[in-house]
Amino acid sequence: MFVIGERTNGMFTSIGDAILAKDPQPVRAMAEQQLGCGANALDINVGTRVPKAERPAVMQWLVATTREVTDICLAIDTPNLEVMRVGLEAACRKGTGMINSTTGQADKLAAFMKLAREFKARIIGLAIDENGVAATADAKVEIGMRVLAAALDVGLAADEVYLDPITLPLNCAQNAPGIMLETIRQFKMLSDPAPHVVIGLSNLSQGATERGLINRSFLVMAIQAGLDASIHDPLDEELMNAMITAEVLLNRMIYSDSYLKAYRQT
Amino acid sequence: MFVIGERTNGMFTSIGDAILAKDPQPVRAMAEQQLGCGANALDINVGTRVPKAERPAVMQWLVATTREVTDICLAIDTPNLEVMRVGLEAACRKGTGMINSTTGQADKLAAFMKLAREFKARIIGLAIDENGVAATADAKVEIGMRVLAAALDVGLAADEVYLDPITLPLNCAQNAPGIMLETIRQFKMLSDPAPHVVIGLSNLSQGATERGLINRSFLVMAIQAGLDASIHDPLDEELMNAMITAEVLLNRMIYSDSYLKAYRQT
Repeated sequence: MFVIGERTNGMFTSIGDAILAKDPQPVRAMAEQQLGCGANALDINVGTRVPKAERPAVMQWLVATTREVTDICLAIDTPNLEVMRVGLEAACRKGTGMINSTTGQADKLAAFMKLAREFKARIIGLAIDENGVAATADAKVEIGMRVLAAALDVGLAADEVYLDPITLPLNCAQNAPGIMLETIRQFKMLSDPAPHVVIGLSNLSQGATERGLINRSFLVMAIQAGLDASIHDPLDEELMNAMITAEVLLNRMIYSDSYLKAYRQT
Repeated sequence: MFVIGERTNGMFTSIGDAILAKDPQPVRAMAEQQLGCGANALDINVGTRVPKAERPAVMQWLVATTREVTDICLAIDTPNLEVMRVGLEAACRKGTGMINSTTGQADKLAAFMKLAREFKARIIGLAIDENGVAATADAKVEIGMRVLAAALDVGLAADEVYLDPITLPLNCAQNAPGIMLETIRQFKMLSDPAPHVVIGLSNLSQGATERGLINRSFLVMAIQAGLDASIHDPLDEELMNAMITAEVLLNRMIYSDSYLKAYRQT
């Protein structure tokens, strides 16, 4: 599993405060904490507390500050093309970048794929297009196919593409997890080699009481269905333990009595 | 999910001691505890501490003592035909019985199916035959098919049959969970209406350090694959929570913020 840590995000109070105070210390510490817990990449999101006009500069600072402590893949999390470019520039000076995200909307898709090619960046494609969030597995897969084709067209490899079925909160759409699982299975059959499949896990339990339990139960199911990347909180130890155990159960990681420790040491 | 509580078993110290002392109180208490935690049936196993010759009488006592407090389905857990008959007689005086278990071995299958018909009992069929434990999904499904056919032949309905792919310990056979998941999927496609699929969950984590984590992660996967019955410890609250959450995620139980509580109140 390719874990994209979600905590370098201005929506979290400590990071939001650090951004406003231009204090690099909490940003560096958050990167190190997530890496220490097994993150394979870090999502970078400036949040909503800075005015729109300042977001390119803030993204530049947030990425550069994170880059001071790691050359791991950084996922620039913004729907804005200008903020994305600035973020990728800062991320790709040393190490790789990831576009989080494009949709299947034609003009957006073209612009973000151009950026992906320019920065040799990986790219996340959401199951959204001109008609909004696709509601059925078929419609999600159709958009996934368009994203994948656009990526191959600009010279990306299938395994640089991360298709995202879109996570809806369980308490609003109880049929959504089943549709996601079906979409994950079908995404993995779109090409050979297959694209990666990623989810933004935490949204599933938005507003629910049993957030941790819901997140980790669904993550285990999604891994079984073919999920191989997830944007989530690597500091959630129970979630990471469930994820690692799923990998061991599916024989993707060797069992030993201390497999949890072994995972965290590699 | 049809939960068959595993704790009325002479292998557990409190029940083993109660059997030797002929003390009904711990046996009644264990039945009530398991039912209070959401068990839909109780497995009854005399364990290994009583001499073979005494096992029919002990099974009779253990079942009758449990029957004093509940008329729920009781699964008589023995490979011995005589012990099985005595157990079913005691179980079926009031409420239903379940045979745990037959294998696909021809003579055993014939004898146990005869008993199932006589007592209108449900029956668990293991993926074992003259050649031992079937190692591949194909071989397991082939035995499952034979068990199902034998059941239909004596007049049982498909949904009175519980096929069991056989659980091997993860630390001995790391490819076994994947094979089990594939077998579960195929068992559910054997007929329409489909047979039930059951596992003896705890054996999976036999000898492992992270027993609870392994059991509950696999149970969630197995439910997604089509499992609809499980022999496990209903007193394991985290396991039951994971199971209930899997049901909610697959839209088989209505979500509410207090869905864990709601499950336990029904």
